[in-house]
Amino acid sequence: MTPFLNRRDLSFQLFEVLATGTLPRRPRFADHSREVYEDILNVAHTVAERHFANHTREVDSHEPQVVDGKVVLPAAVAGAMRAFREAGFFSAHHDEALGGLQLPWVVTQAVQAHFQAANIGSSGYPFLTIGNANLQRLFASPEQQRRYMLPLLEGRWFGTMALSEPQAGSGLADITTTATPRGDGTYDISGTKMWISGGEHELTENIVHLVLARIAGGPGGVRGISLFLVPRYRVQDDGRPGEPNHVVLAGLNHKMGYRGTVNTLLNFGEGGETVGELVGEPGQGLAQMFHMMNEARIGVGLGAVMLGTAGYLHSLAYAQERRQGRLPSGKDPHAPPVAIIDHADVRRLLLRQKVFVEGGLALGLYASSLVDDLQTGPEETRGDTGLLLDLLTPIVKSWPSRYSQEALSDAIQVMGGAGYTRDFPVEMYYRDNRLNPIHEGTEGIQGNDLLGRKLTQKGGRGLVVLLEKIETDLAASDGFERLEEIRAALRQALTQTREAITSLLSRAAELGPDVVLANANSALEALGHTVVGWMWLRQGVAAARALPDARGSDADFYQGKLHAARFFAVYELPKVRAYAELLRSADLTTLEMQPGWF
Amino acid sequence: MTPFLNRRDLSFQLFEVLATGTLPRRPRFADHSREVYEDILNVAHTVAERHFANHTREVDSHEPQVVDGKVVLPAAVAGAMRAFREAGFFSAHHDEALGGLQLPWVVTQAVQAHFQAANIGSSGYPFLTIGNANLQRLFASPEQQRRYMLPLLEGRWFGTMALSEPQAGSGLADITTTATPRGDGTYDISGTKMWISGGEHELTENIVHLVLARIAGGPGGVRGISLFLVPRYRVQDDGRPGEPNHVVLAGLNHKMGYRGTVNTLLNFGEGGETVGELVGEPGQGLAQMFHMMNEARIGVGLGAVMLGTAGYLHSLAYAQERRQGRLPSGKDPHAPPVAIIDHADVRRLLLRQKVFVEGGLALGLYASSLVDDLQTGPEETRGDTGLLLDLLTPIVKSWPSRYSQEALSDAIQVMGGAGYTRDFPVEMYYRDNRLNPIHEGTEGIQGNDLLGRKLTQKGGRGLVVLLEKIETDLAASDGFERLEEIRAALRQALTQTREAITSLLSRAAELGPDVVLANANSALEALGHTVVGWMWLRQGVAAARALPDARGSDADFYQGKLHAARFFAVYELPKVRAYAELLRSADLTTLEMQPGWF
Repeated sequence: MTPFLNRRDLSFQLFEVLATGTLPRRPRFADHSREVYEDILNVAHTVAERHFANHTREVDSHEPQVVDGKVVLPAAVAGAMRAFREAGFFSAHHDEALGGLQLPWVVTQAVQAHFQAANIGSSGYPFLTIGNANLQRLFASPEQQRRYMLPLLEGRWFGTMALSEPQAGSGLADITTTATPRGDGTYDISGTKMWISGGEHELTENIVHLVLARIAGGPGGVRGISLFLVPRYRVQDDGRPGEPNHVVLAGLNHKMGYRGTVNTLLNFGEGGETVGELVGEPGQGLAQMFHMMNEARIGVGLGAVMLGTAGYLHSLAYAQERRQGRLPSGKDPHAPPVAIIDHADVRRLLLRQKVFVEGGLALGLYASSLVDDLQTGPEETRGDTGLLLDLLTPIVKSWPSRYSQEALSDAIQVMGGAGYTRDFPVEMYYRDNRLNPIHEGTEGIQGNDLLGRKLTQKGGRGLVVLLEKIETDLAASDGFERLEEIRAALRQALTQTREAITSLLSRAAELGPDVVLANANSALEALGHTVVGWMWLRQGVAAARALPDARGSDADFYQGKLHAARFFAVYELPKVRAYAELLRSADLTTLEMQPGWF
Repeated sequence: MTPFLNRRDLSFQLFEVLATGTLPRRPRFADHSREVYEDILNVAHTVAERHFANHTREVDSHEPQVVDGKVVLPAAVAGAMRAFREAGFFSAHHDEALGGLQLPWVVTQAVQAHFQAANIGSSGYPFLTIGNANLQRLFASPEQQRRYMLPLLEGRWFGTMALSEPQAGSGLADITTTATPRGDGTYDISGTKMWISGGEHELTENIVHLVLARIAGGPGGVRGISLFLVPRYRVQDDGRPGEPNHVVLAGLNHKMGYRGTVNTLLNFGEGGETVGELVGEPGQGLAQMFHMMNEARIGVGLGAVMLGTAGYLHSLAYAQERRQGRLPSGKDPHAPPVAIIDHADVRRLLLRQKVFVEGGLALGLYASSLVDDLQTGPEETRGDTGLLLDLLTPIVKSWPSRYSQEALSDAIQVMGGAGYTRDFPVEMYYRDNRLNPIHEGTEGIQGNDLLGRKLTQKGGRGLVVLLEKIETDLAASDGFERLEEIRAALRQALTQTREAITSLLSRAAELGPDVVLANANSALEALGHTVVGWMWLRQGVAAARALPDARGSDADFYQGKLHAARFFAVYELPKVRAYAELLRSADLTTLEMQPGWF
């Protein structure tokens, strides 16, 4: 089996680039060690390989079906869920008192990465369940946690997030699902939710939906949106599922990818009352849900990275085996064909994949490490850490989604005709990943979030923190000759991007929000590439430090990192200039286009 | 039904940008007029809409199957072929004496564009049949033409091109199919051919394969490759198909796109002799086939354009209808949501699609008009025209293939979740078009062709001709204020690209072919964007000239062209710099990456 994940790189990112190995110095992780983390990752690898990678194509080619009113999935999905549950991964991040392992977030994300790489469709169920439980842990009452969260931590029930409606996809301000007080503290939920992953299936004895709805008579807009816990089956006093809660499957969505994750249209309150419980205070629904969304956005970014990684490794193995053609300098027709990895353009396609997916992995794990710092790091730095994480989140979500798609296109390209046949998995990864730039917030939304909110909040402090971090790493790279290209290119991209952002935002009042946000995508592109350039500098520094003492395959690994950093510097970072110039110019071209002119 | 093609734009490109309306001044087209051409395009539109667009999704979701040893296609495909035949489109380009309409090539390509936009899968059969007949017309003997070409012109039989083999995809020098003289002037063909579109079906009573093979005992490499006519059923003296010729279907390829075009693995000489006839002289196979390939490459480019166009028009219609969110400046939650086309970022995504697909269409039709100039234009310019067409062919093939994919990704992005469901066609177009950067010669091959051959042949005369043409159009744009951005941006891109190419090629002997060709993709990108910038300048000039007298929707159309030219200038042409700098530097990064470092 072609590897779906580079275990060596994962350890490099966690323990050589990031300081994951020092987390056990924090009280919450005192029982841990690097060895403990490595062991857990090894378990994740085994479970992913045996119980997830075994049916990846099956869930793609055999989509969920409705038979006699029930959602039917391939049998292997249930086996995967059982193995995931038995490994304790549903609660890995949680307190030992709740049955968890108190793993740092960055380690749980590295665990999840295995399942995303092995089978993105089947990994969707745990992904949503874990996110749902995390939200409950923060905002639900102790009683609600006992009833609705503990079964998720045990993997006995699964969870969903139910935000969108048919008339309101990205525009959550326009949702119309209503919650009418029933007089006993619970609410009668009525409305239709669209795009609900894991919304209906028979994998578990109950499903807990987190539903955004408006309390009848409340204010309009986002201030009127509250969050509700809505089980598929009402929960009895003994905690077991009882009678149906009238959440009715109205249809399945058929997508080009993620076909293994059942995606549903759900009617709440059809044929009877749907009873829900308010989470926290009324009107806090969007803010609460955004906690889950932000976590989900980092998760989507990492999922994109892992799809890209699986495709990269597959095309790399193919390029090492497949023989075709001769080098331009060696046209002797009687010489045997070379392995296609010897063609410069194939190496270009492989290097592109390497910088996109390993750069994306570095970014996703870096952001995950900030989640840990926010929770268990020094108190005095948490304010800045939070602002940096906020700033990076739209990039962590969108950059890998977009550039893993480029990587997967390159994986297909390396393999030629074989790449687009269904005999090989890369065409499937390519279809899967095309969802990532859309779900959990489109690129347009991420751009607006970055330029309209994250770059301006707290007087732009997030950007200041980011720039300081980058400068620190630039200083650390001094003296390593092999890092000259990435250092110079990053410095240039950073200057162009910073000046463009500062220039545009200094004119924000004069330009008005429509003009500023018309340039949001350029900000996302310019800052995104700059940030990933920084990730390559960081990887380069770690590799340059380790290389002198490395031998054999380890030395090759570090050489590859240093060379990939150079590639990113030479091929990718120069692209920042065009985006920065657009941004600085406060471009009006898109706004001035009239709809009737198309 | 959402339109699959912009008829107004097609007429603009043919009659306002290109001088197709003046072709009837040439003797071969003396019976024609612009009205004749418009009428024929209208027929094509009707046939495409009624008989091709009616089963586009059906051939995607119901792939060809083998039942009792026969290839079974949805019944609608046969109806489409009948309608195409009855309209006379199989022979439209050919002499009236052969039953044709003597249409200029550019008009036949505009006809084909309708079928590619309406149903790329079903359009594959005529596409290959027409190419096969054109090759026979040039190289086959009169007797062979009578036997094997006339039935293709009548649409009674279909044709294929059979080049690749399982062990030799792009590396045609390594094919091993053999042709053994049978003593009567015919050959016994033996071997296996891979990726043969239309290789087996029951749509017609015979199939004519054009097969590359080596005459036993001949030289190795490309000089030993000859071309053979190989019918599925041997042809009797009365011209009717007789006994089977032992071309045996060994399997079907299952692809992510173009699923309506049956794609086969064929064994020649299985269970009996496969008899073939040599076309022209031995050893000329590759040169002859390249005539068909070059034609096919322009056709692939136009096919990519039309897939992109169909997606663009679909997402445009959706964006005009779908209401979601509010402008940044208008956050009143009680105001109704705006149409999403009012969001600047959606306009950006639509403008990107517009410049990619309309720029690609301009390029494909321009190249097609050069085919006409080569055949019926002034004798004294044909040498230069041929060199220009040679130079442009790799760009015409690869640029739309690549940038229509960007456009189709944008079409999905505009539509959000709807874009990736199978309820809408854009995800299908996206899967279809992903084949185009590979089949008929990968991007890598096009890059090598451009930099290693087309930019150097005849002392680089092709580039000189191209630069003269661009300078002429730049001069023609003088005085039009609305063309200031595109004029300035094109001039800059042109200077950067020309200097980079000249610099690199001037050092070719010193650098050696491996280093030069390691930079082929940068040449393809830099010159590709520059050439399409030129296409936008040409469209801009035509629009600027027509706008003062235009009213209503016509004025809107020209405004759109002028604004799109500006968009290409501001958003796309600045990307040339990074590619030109790589090219000029004779970059070594890809070559110096060691396989073991990945």
